[in-house]
Amino acid sequence: MNWEELAKELAQATDSKIVLMVVDGLGGLPVNGKTELETARHPNLDKLAGEGICGLTDPVYPGITPGSGPAHLSLFGYDPLVYRLGRGILEALGSGVDVGNLDLVARGNFATLRGGVITDRRAGRIPTSETERLCAAINAKLPQRPGTKVSLFPGKEHRFVFKVSGQGLADGLSDADPQKEGKPPVPVQPTRPDSKQAAEVVNAFVADVTALLRDEAKANTVLMRGFSKFPSIPTMGQLFKIRPAAIANYPMYKGLAKLVGMDVQSVGSETEDLFRTVESRFQDFDFFYIHFKRTDSAGEDGNFEAKVKAIEEFDAFVPRLTALKPDVLVVTSDHSTPSLLKGHSWHPNPFLLAAGTAMTDAVTRFTERDCSRGGLGRFPSLQAMALMLAHAGKLKKYGA
Amino acid sequence: MNWEELAKELAQATDSKIVLMVVDGLGGLPVNGKTELETARHPNLDKLAGEGICGLTDPVYPGITPGSGPAHLSLFGYDPLVYRLGRGILEALGSGVDVGNLDLVARGNFATLRGGVITDRRAGRIPTSETERLCAAINAKLPQRPGTKVSLFPGKEHRFVFKVSGQGLADGLSDADPQKEGKPPVPVQPTRPDSKQAAEVVNAFVADVTALLRDEAKANTVLMRGFSKFPSIPTMGQLFKIRPAAIANYPMYKGLAKLVGMDVQSVGSETEDLFRTVESRFQDFDFFYIHFKRTDSAGEDGNFEAKVKAIEEFDAFVPRLTALKPDVLVVTSDHSTPSLLKGHSWHPNPFLLAAGTAMTDAVTRFTERDCSRGGLGRFPSLQAMALMLAHAGKLKKYGA
Repeated sequence: MNWEELAKELAQATDSKIVLMVVDGLGGLPVNGKTELETARHPNLDKLAGEGICGLTDPVYPGITPGSGPAHLSLFGYDPLVYRLGRGILEALGSGVDVGNLDLVARGNFATLRGGVITDRRAGRIPTSETERLCAAINAKLPQRPGTKVSLFPGKEHRFVFKVSGQGLADGLSDADPQKEGKPPVPVQPTRPDSKQAAEVVNAFVADVTALLRDEAKANTVLMRGFSKFPSIPTMGQLFKIRPAAIANYPMYKGLAKLVGMDVQSVGSETEDLFRTVESRFQDFDFFYIHFKRTDSAGEDGNFEAKVKAIEEFDAFVPRLTALKPDVLVVTSDHSTPSLLKGHSWHPNPFLLAAGTAMTDAVTRFTERDCSRGGLGRFPSLQAMALMLAHAGKLKKYGA
Repeated sequence: MNWEELAKELAQATDSKIVLMVVDGLGGLPVNGKTELETARHPNLDKLAGEGICGLTDPVYPGITPGSGPAHLSLFGYDPLVYRLGRGILEALGSGVDVGNLDLVARGNFATLRGGVITDRRAGRIPTSETERLCAAINAKLPQRPGTKVSLFPGKEHRFVFKVSGQGLADGLSDADPQKEGKPPVPVQPTRPDSKQAAEVVNAFVADVTALLRDEAKANTVLMRGFSKFPSIPTMGQLFKIRPAAIANYPMYKGLAKLVGMDVQSVGSETEDLFRTVESRFQDFDFFYIHFKRTDSAGEDGNFEAKVKAIEEFDAFVPRLTALKPDVLVVTSDHSTPSLLKGHSWHPNPFLLAAGTAMTDAVTRFTERDCSRGGLGRFPSLQAMALMLAHAGKLKKYGA
């Protein structure tokens, strides 16, 4: 019996409320002896650490650097080694593209093709309005091949979501992207026998769209990555008998939440909008996933100071969460993003759980190294959901 | 998806270098309040602990005392509950015996049989030259039974490696050894239905060789243990995309390394030879397994003082490892061998990892109890390979 089966057997609906606050890419590495969390002033997080219990979590497996998908699935209680998500499906859902069982989706870029090679993988970062114009033109004029229908959905700058609908389109496809400039376009290849037809459809689309765009100055071809279908994932409601809401600014995280059956809220683009939303909807759900992005963005940029500032910005909002008096409040991260490494890393996440039933520990500062001495020890992120449900009284006793 | 599948998917070849230094049987238990590691002076290990991050590892499962085989497999990134090795195959490979798919091997002893019972399980520890003479005589004169061919390879003193080649010889066999003196010889029994034929072949060999040796004064029969075939194990190169070298003085560890596809170096018998070899071959590989034996031997002998001295002897060589500036340096053990217990034990291993991407912790002494408060916490040895690969930049991101 695995965790999922256990959860289905033991979960019970209650009125108690859980807040899962994800501070994206929070964990870091020392620069001049201190990490971003050790450098930032965050009195509210420290107070909460003093009242709760801390630990460190491994998102997927020690040593494994996760993408946002597996890192979030794990926190949501889904084994990231069982449920695998393509980047395309995340982008599509996050952009509000409706994806059904017959649809195959991917992330697309407009790109520049000159003399048989890709000279700019982003078509000079054409403005969003240009991408909107191009997508509309393609949707109107693209020759539709029998049995399939292609639609493009414009994103920011040169980006779009590709969707093709039809029978038998499987998602075992390599990327249609040479990854580097100065190389010729690469056709997609099936990575499984059942994906041969889908490969032909996608390669025909690339040929058609390149012909259609031949007179464009910059955006005269497309690149596509992360082909994926809508995965069949049981909802959090089915597994854990909760009514979950997602409160996030960015498409990726909205998409992830939608995949596991969360009710995705409309949220403005400012940090305060996150907290305004949880306040206004607090009576309507019993599980709130809140996503704060700026720590990760600063880490990805290698901007130590900006990450310190993002932590301090977030800390100022912590009292608005505690004021709601959730039965369980967890503050943690999906994965670490040390400024030093300018990207996601495998280092474990600081984890803080505050609840009336939590054994407190000696940790009074919320940092990576303080958490490593916390009462929860080191554990897989996948176990976080069990802890949250337990402290919210949402898990029955196992066995007699 | 398990760790092995994950590794195959994510591993990438790089030029970065990993040194895995195994100090055999390092962990101990207190005698007069202090363990061997707590008693020994090891300033170089302590300095390294201060610069890196420490923890404790369980070789197989908490409470389980491992043999050298499973303890090493785990450190090499192979699940010791999946891959099981007979002692015979380790001895054979370590002795340079060529083992193919049709071969069944075992460890053998010459022994003394009097009045129907084994009176000396080691035939009075006859000299190596005697064993060489006996093996040559047996190889020349033994009646070969149709379809099989037996060869003996002399080892030290009364020991030899037994090899029989033939179709359908499976390795599910009990030992041909009464384990105690004063008992009659025991025939091997098949422990699986597919091993019935092999049991007959081995028992026929014991009868034949005993007849052949009937005029010998001491070595007039043989005992055999650990029947095994060459196991099919993916190589470390296949799994982790590394080029591994093994630097060890003793046959058993060379054999283990060969099984997982390491390039086994010729090394002299002195401790310094280990370090001389890693220095001279440092440009030729990207993963170095170095094995130091004396701590384990002293522990097995129950000689606390000798183990303290062995630790101090090893410590003096640590600067030669750090001088190589490997990207990742791990110092740990395969299993604990407390002098107090005169044998392997289930206690976890001290573990130290030094790398530019390692979060440092508060540990500044390399001992069992200091490591128990280290930043890596307590984890299975099987996860060590993931950590080493991650810190060496040899693992790609998992998922988008």
